[in-house]
Amino acid sequence: MRELQEMLTQFAEERDWEKFHTPKNLAMALAGEAGELLEIFQWLDPDESCSIMRSPERAKAVEQELADIFSYLLRLADVLGIDLAGALRDKVEINRTRYPVELSRGHAQKYTRLTEA
Amino acid sequence: MRELQEMLTQFAEERDWEKFHTPKNLAMALAGEAGELLEIFQWLDPDESCSIMRSPERAKAVEQELADIFSYLLRLADVLGIDLAGALRDKVEINRTRYPVELSRGHAQKYTRLTEA
Amino acid sequence: MRELQEMLTQFAEERDWEKFHTPKNLAMALAGEAGELLEIFQWLDPDESCSIMRSPERAKAVEQELADIFSYLLRLADVLGIDLAGALRDKVEINRTRYPVELSRGHAQKYTRLTEA
Amino acid sequence: MRELQEMLTQFAEERDWEKFHTPKNLAMALAGEAGELLEIFQWLDPDESCSIMRSPERAKAVEQELADIFSYLLRLADVLGIDLAGALRDKVEINRTRYPVELSRGHAQKYTRLTEA
Repeated sequence: MRELQEMLTQFAEERDWEKFHTPKNLAMALAGEAGELLEIFQWLDPDESCSIMRSPERAKAVEQELADIFSYLLRLADVLGIDLAGALRDKVEINRTRYPVELSRGHAQKYTRLTEA
Repeated sequence: MRELQEMLTQFAEERDWEKFHTPKNLAMALAGEAGELLEIFQWLDPDESCSIMRSPERAKAVEQELADIFSYLLRLADVLGIDLAGALRDKVEINRTRYPVELSRGHAQKYTRLTEA
Repeated sequence: MRELQEMLTQFAEERDWEKFHTPKNLAMALAGEAGELLEIFQWLDPDESCSIMRSPERAKAVEQELADIFSYLLRLADVLGIDLAGALRDKVEINRTRYPVELSRGHAQKYTRLTEA
Repeated sequence: MRELQEMLTQFAEERDWEKFHTPKNLAMALAGEAGELLEIFQWLDPDESCSIMRSPERAKAVEQELADIFSYLLRLADVLGIDLAGALRDKVEINRTRYPVELSRGHAQKYTRLTEA
């Protein structure tokens, strides 16, 4: 991931775009791309969403959106000095405690999430 | 990243949550977490957003949100069979053509993006 | 809606919060609330989403999220001087041309949207 | 607002699009439009965001995004049987208690929101 981050930094530097890449702006850009991802899936029923990669045109659109989201996520982690893989491992440990297997099997997540909302 | 994806798959399997992880649902979950990231930054001015990591409490909140976004991004790529690093490299190549250095220096991105919207 | 906007302006003025309500910040706040709405629905299948109002707890959560989104939408329109009802009528006219009834029946929207993405 | 909702219902009925308008799908569509709104503002500094309506092209883009968000918000309230104006008034009452004027003047909102995140 370090190598990908360096590629993205170079891309921004060459265009003098680093001045736009405040954490606030990058968070907006990431959320904007997440919104474009939603638009691909919004009218699909669950089964259609599972077979989306069979359409080459849609598969390409999904790949590009995930790439856009990944690029802003990597940039954001980079400018904030966050180790993404480490943060993910820490969060999974927290979630192991929050959602114990025996209480969570097959249902707990959604109700727990709802209560949080 | 393969190892992180396997950790997440195992976490979902243990809780029988794979049935919830359709691409459509994962896209929503990713966008929901992106929304929580926005909430951390929404009232900050640009400078405050740049120094957010100096507050341990806020730093922890940002790390956890980035971890949540990363986890859903990895799950989504996994269930769709997308190679995230490859998709990112392809997208950067497209962007090199779309935003040539000489035309983009210091300004073009934002106007180009606006025109797209 | 004017009356609701005045109530919201007064609420912000009393707390000296108008300085936070730039269009950029309000757009983020609106999108953050839309993310919370997603979290309520993200793990539900289509049928469950249709009967969500039967659960008093969930019904209350949905009502509050719609209220939050509506409040930021009204504030944003207010600070930008946009007439929401007029803008909506104009947009529906555009959509009548973009999605003619005979070409759109039962399917066109989703494919059209996908192509846009 | 009732009249606007009837216009939108008729628009959907004529195209046989009501089958796509489950609460879950409408929540996604609303969040997708909120993402497009973010894209308009993401690279602007606070002052630029405040003067966005001076550019006729950008003003039109913002108006159309607010109209899109409003249309999905009205549809969602309609299919769920929620009174938007009533829900907003109720939420403002809750917020009066949650953010008392004397404790909130000039700062409280953002820190409170952060703690919630």
